[in-house]
Amino acid sequence: MPQFAPLQNDTFLRALLRQPTDYTPVWLMRQAGRYLPEYRDTRARAGSFMGLATNADYATEVTLQPLARFPLDAAILFSDILTVPDAMGLGLYFVEGEGPKFQRPLKTEQDVLALRLPEPGSLDYVFKAVTQIRSELNGRVPLIGFSGSPWTLACYMVEGQGSREFHTIKKMLYGRPDLMHHILALNARAVAEYLNAQIDAGAQAVMIFDSWGGALADGAYQQFSLNYMEQVLSQLKREKDGVRIPAIVFTKGGGQWLEQIAAIGADAVGLDWTVNLTRARALVGHRVGLQGNLDPAILFASPDQIRAEVAKVLDAYGAPAAGHGHVFNLGHGISQFTPPEHVAAMVEAVHAHSRAQRAA
Amino acid sequence: MPQFAPLQNDTFLRALLRQPTDYTPVWLMRQAGRYLPEYRDTRARAGSFMGLATNADYATEVTLQPLARFPLDAAILFSDILTVPDAMGLGLYFVEGEGPKFQRPLKTEQDVLALRLPEPGSLDYVFKAVTQIRSELNGRVPLIGFSGSPWTLACYMVEGQGSREFHTIKKMLYGRPDLMHHILALNARAVAEYLNAQIDAGAQAVMIFDSWGGALADGAYQQFSLNYMEQVLSQLKREKDGVRIPAIVFTKGGGQWLEQIAAIGADAVGLDWTVNLTRARALVGHRVGLQGNLDPAILFASPDQIRAEVAKVLDAYGAPAAGHGHVFNLGHGISQFTPPEHVAAMVEAVHAHSRAQRAA
Repeated sequence: MPQFAPLQNDTFLRALLRQPTDYTPVWLMRQAGRYLPEYRDTRARAGSFMGLATNADYATEVTLQPLARFPLDAAILFSDILTVPDAMGLGLYFVEGEGPKFQRPLKTEQDVLALRLPEPGSLDYVFKAVTQIRSELNGRVPLIGFSGSPWTLACYMVEGQGSREFHTIKKMLYGRPDLMHHILALNARAVAEYLNAQIDAGAQAVMIFDSWGGALADGAYQQFSLNYMEQVLSQLKREKDGVRIPAIVFTKGGGQWLEQIAAIGADAVGLDWTVNLTRARALVGHRVGLQGNLDPAILFASPDQIRAEVAKVLDAYGAPAAGHGHVFNLGHGISQFTPPEHVAAMVEAVHAHSRAQRAA
Repeated sequence: MPQFAPLQNDTFLRALLRQPTDYTPVWLMRQAGRYLPEYRDTRARAGSFMGLATNADYATEVTLQPLARFPLDAAILFSDILTVPDAMGLGLYFVEGEGPKFQRPLKTEQDVLALRLPEPGSLDYVFKAVTQIRSELNGRVPLIGFSGSPWTLACYMVEGQGSREFHTIKKMLYGRPDLMHHILALNARAVAEYLNAQIDAGAQAVMIFDSWGGALADGAYQQFSLNYMEQVLSQLKREKDGVRIPAIVFTKGGGQWLEQIAAIGADAVGLDWTVNLTRARALVGHRVGLQGNLDPAILFASPDQIRAEVAKVLDAYGAPAAGHGHVFNLGHGISQFTPPEHVAAMVEAVHAHSRAQRAA
């Protein structure tokens, strides 16, 4: 393992661990992405999305791009959410304008029972990128590793692609819960191994994206999504070289289950924009930090309006007291149509307003 | 006004008004629809969806179809959610497989300021259908009238069609809140007049569908959706010939705002399947009845599994005590791919299990 440079800005990690910070740290889901012209340039050179994601040089380049523009407090590995099922042999591919798909989705009982953990080495391109990004970050800000949740990966693995209604996987869930649990148990092991390898490679925090947990009914969510995220967390390395590696879980649309999510062992919980942060903070108390939750659509408004909405989010959380922690983020990935100068206004407003809150 | 036959089964109305019932009443959102072969036959004869919705004979025929198959406890007017903006001159049309669209969406300030209430008479085809359906129901079960919420109508009016992200309308909401409020105030008046005319024509309960309120951020939801539903409710006729006309509001994805929704003056609140009914009942107390909330995807499972999930929903609510009321429904419209015999199993299970609950 290479020796990495000492960390210069640990605000993000401190907030996740509910330690005092001088200001509220900020990063954006999909901060390396199509809204940046320099990203589009790299993407064009790489030839395809997976050409970009599977090449450590390109992945490093795009991961660092938003940091060159904005004083963000964390970097996040550039990768795809579906690398793990791809490495399980499902054949990830992309159709322009349609999102990711699998060539061999899990359609039959036989498909499910034949499912195996990724072959050793099949995800090395991801871990290589993690190490290279961490090295080139040179200690500027921490690097976040990530994975889809077991349930969210299963949605794509069974549906074969994204979905609005999730009829195929829900048919399996209600009709053949044994098969559903078989997939999810395997996914939980694969995700834990994947995140642990990212931690070994240099990730300083990890995040589990449960993009589709919010599609589940109360009861089914706890059994088929939350339960398997808890399994992942219980298998994670939470310390590396004596330093705590914080873990964040984020169920989009899961605001109603916040107290239950806060109890599965994560350091922080991500929240979408439908959640009232004042209430969320009161509900979770000192148990976890919170991350969120500006509506990314606000970034289409004027810089003045963006500043006003940023202040509302920060004021809803309030100045963090001892044992509390807030990381500012969007409640969902940034849109490709966002003007980059609006992101600059947002980041500046988060830092300025949160410093003023602490001074008040 | 015609004299209508006396009501034989008022279980649905009693549950909405939190009066004792012998069993839990049940109806389904989109219960008259494409999952029924007889609906598809009528639709083929009508030539088009709007040909069906604008003809009182056809609308009556399809409204009554599910009642001939299943012992449902309410009928709901067959109509489209976008009749009101169509009558405002936006030009509703349908593209096969793509959902409704408007020829003249509200794109500019000029478009917004030129918006007017529907011309008198332009929605008479709806009221005529209401009267005819009520007559042909012959007192069997109550007839529900409905409208989209001011916000949900505005989503289609500004986006021009359905949307996943609602970027266009959110840009207006955050950038030109004055224009947004102008549309919503007009929509609230139009919706109140529309529902009152349905009540005059014979509707015995009304429901406001806020399909897209759940896309809004906390704060924006209260200001731009909830507030205008409250305005509608405050303008509604709540009694006709000495009989209370219950009003139901339903914000899909609004479970986190349940206490606020319960406070705007509706008799009952609809809930999607993500909401825990035990908790919801405790939160609203005696203030409102609750309606929901089986995941419609459960209807793809076997009848045995459907019965088990129906029992879970009923047991989560619990046997209604004095001052409480529960109407069983899906948390969303029924899918066109649902086997009708699975609906039969569900309706039977609701009646049987809820009678057993009360006997226990």
